[in-house]
Amino acid sequence: MNPHVPASARPKGFRFAATACGLKKSGLDLGLLVSEVPAAAACVFTTNLVKAAPILVSRAHLKRSESKMRAVIVNSGNANCATGDAGLAASKRTAAATARAIGCRAEQILVCSTGVIGLPMRTERILRAIPTLQVNGNSAPGSFEQFTRAIMTTDTRPKWTAAHCIIGGRRVRLLGCAKGAGMIHPQMATMLSFIVTDAAASPTVLRRALRQAVSKTFNAITVDGDTSTNDTLALLANGASGAENLAAGGPSYRQFVAALESVCRSLALQIVADGEGAQRVIEIEVRGAASHQAAARIASTIANSPLVKTALAGGDPNWGRILAAAGRAGVRFDPERVEISMAGITMCRGGCAHSFSEKAAHGKLLSKHVPIVVNLHGGKGSARAWTCDFTADYVRINASYRS
Amino acid sequence: MNPHVPASARPKGFRFAATACGLKKSGLDLGLLVSEVPAAAACVFTTNLVKAAPILVSRAHLKRSESKMRAVIVNSGNANCATGDAGLAASKRTAAATARAIGCRAEQILVCSTGVIGLPMRTERILRAIPTLQVNGNSAPGSFEQFTRAIMTTDTRPKWTAAHCIIGGRRVRLLGCAKGAGMIHPQMATMLSFIVTDAAASPTVLRRALRQAVSKTFNAITVDGDTSTNDTLALLANGASGAENLAAGGPSYRQFVAALESVCRSLALQIVADGEGAQRVIEIEVRGAASHQAAARIASTIANSPLVKTALAGGDPNWGRILAAAGRAGVRFDPERVEISMAGITMCRGGCAHSFSEKAAHGKLLSKHVPIVVNLHGGKGSARAWTCDFTADYVRINASYRS
Repeated sequence: MNPHVPASARPKGFRFAATACGLKKSGLDLGLLVSEVPAAAACVFTTNLVKAAPILVSRAHLKRSESKMRAVIVNSGNANCATGDAGLAASKRTAAATARAIGCRAEQILVCSTGVIGLPMRTERILRAIPTLQVNGNSAPGSFEQFTRAIMTTDTRPKWTAAHCIIGGRRVRLLGCAKGAGMIHPQMATMLSFIVTDAAASPTVLRRALRQAVSKTFNAITVDGDTSTNDTLALLANGASGAENLAAGGPSYRQFVAALESVCRSLALQIVADGEGAQRVIEIEVRGAASHQAAARIASTIANSPLVKTALAGGDPNWGRILAAAGRAGVRFDPERVEISMAGITMCRGGCAHSFSEKAAHGKLLSKHVPIVVNLHGGKGSARAWTCDFTADYVRINASYRS
Repeated sequence: MNPHVPASARPKGFRFAATACGLKKSGLDLGLLVSEVPAAAACVFTTNLVKAAPILVSRAHLKRSESKMRAVIVNSGNANCATGDAGLAASKRTAAATARAIGCRAEQILVCSTGVIGLPMRTERILRAIPTLQVNGNSAPGSFEQFTRAIMTTDTRPKWTAAHCIIGGRRVRLLGCAKGAGMIHPQMATMLSFIVTDAAASPTVLRRALRQAVSKTFNAITVDGDTSTNDTLALLANGASGAENLAAGGPSYRQFVAALESVCRSLALQIVADGEGAQRVIEIEVRGAASHQAAARIASTIANSPLVKTALAGGDPNWGRILAAAGRAGVRFDPERVEISMAGITMCRGGCAHSFSEKAAHGKLLSKHVPIVVNLHGGKGSARAWTCDFTADYVRINASYRS
């Protein structure tokens, strides 16, 4: 994946910059995303009761500037969470310094942080670095790439994607990036992700579009079931494409939501694929449930089962663990009708073992993408969830993350 | 831990035997526990919707014989789950053969299985072995030890404990054993466990005592959040002590429950300590919650957090992950009043970092038993949960369990 987005794919009127300000031991750790004009913003934040300071500050800013924002300033290396009044002051000073550098009001700035919880912020390092951030025009190759790297923590690679749609004859572009890796679990927004578009939309319409796109993408992935304190997904629309304003519900709106959903799905799956220690992406599809909700709950329980995920790390066709996880999801179904296939091989039918070649199955389960289909044969509800396998490397990464 | 229980600690009138019938690649895999006379029985079974055949058969037997049972026959190496009608027939034939061997009715037999799900039972091997089981008198050293080994799967050591109490001047003895290791999560009964006592009690009183003892012991532990399809805890009381019948609620009853709770707590903690790949036991105490339920929910969420458990594998004082896990438990509290200590060292106060020596903390976190106290300072509710750390060995064990 090469983050050198061709110029034709880049939304107009957005600029990116990044630098190494010294919060991480090495590498880029401060990123800036600027819209040339105030952009309508829609954000989803973590549902964790414990919220990091930048989230509290960003929410207040969205309210005060009626969701018309100019920039996002984001650091990695420190989550600025559980840092009390000093943490709040750090986020406010960061926003103020960014506003000074680009010439706008502080409440037009979104602030994001990711990294270790409970560590005092070295705010001076951020404040010193902000004036040095070169916000290149978006034609400068590498600036977006650097931004995608500056937001990484244990991510092994940057994650980004682009899409477009035609609205009233005009091309509208979407460009998104994300960081993930650990503390990844549905219920919004389970990582940092930034999506910019030159579509024109009111914040209200934008929020509705984002909610729709997120429910089947970011909210259907899990790495470890832990919801972070800092998760933020921000969508900025600056209207620079010259396309007409999106009206909720119309055909243009549906086109835009489809493009947005494809961006969200791509980023969500990139996060899963780069889950800490992950070797492969597991796609769990539950069919034949009494309802979509029932299917989603079973899919999520399977996706979060350490026993299922460790079996998949070893390429072990242990379908019994999938059945057992489904059984503890708290949803009624008839175990004797269950059919389970992994990587296209039926392993369980009528709730019992269905003969298959262990060797062939093992081989197929070692691929990069493993689909699992659980058919309950009890209704029309279906849902998908995505997760990664659970490897010894996940443990190694997390046993010494702070050291 | 030496399972050579002194004769004086053994409940009267129970016998044990074990053999290797060939379900496992090697080692003991079939155990028999016999009461000389019909014993009142109280059982708790898995809450998983998917229930193994032996559970269905045992439940029917309990009903048919009004909870007066003679024996438990238990195999390891195969869970006999998701095995359909053939699996049900296997459990029934196993019970019938056991009944013939000891001279009682089939419905007086409890059947238990543990091992891989979805594997056809090699019932003939069990049926051939049953008549060879030498049910020695309970004075025979080694027979109980062999039984505790025959029920093991990935357990690294047998788990047992004994207790006693005085009822109406008579000594009443309790002896329990358990197997655990993986698929361990509260909501009953998260393993196989057998407790015998020579107390006299009706099945009704015995069930009530067991429910009380289990809520704060077996139902407060977790290894990996996965509830098994086969979990069974059976308590048999044969009255051989000659003590008076237990009346619910009286002082003798309270004494008996206290002794039973100590047996359950010891077995539950042995299961956690021997969790797959575990290096240490983590005791999580939540105080100052709005209610006991709220405290229990937070304690359980922390105990199930892979990020908390992997940090503890590395002895990393990463209290931020404890705070983050508490925040996603779905319970209201004020994050700014939270106090967290690990291994007796306060690391968070008023929701912020509290200065401590990282080096000293790391040293203390490497011990065999690590207490964590989370005080929400928001009420009088408190609860405890126990778990183990999450190591690379857990993954290794489960990535290739069937191979």
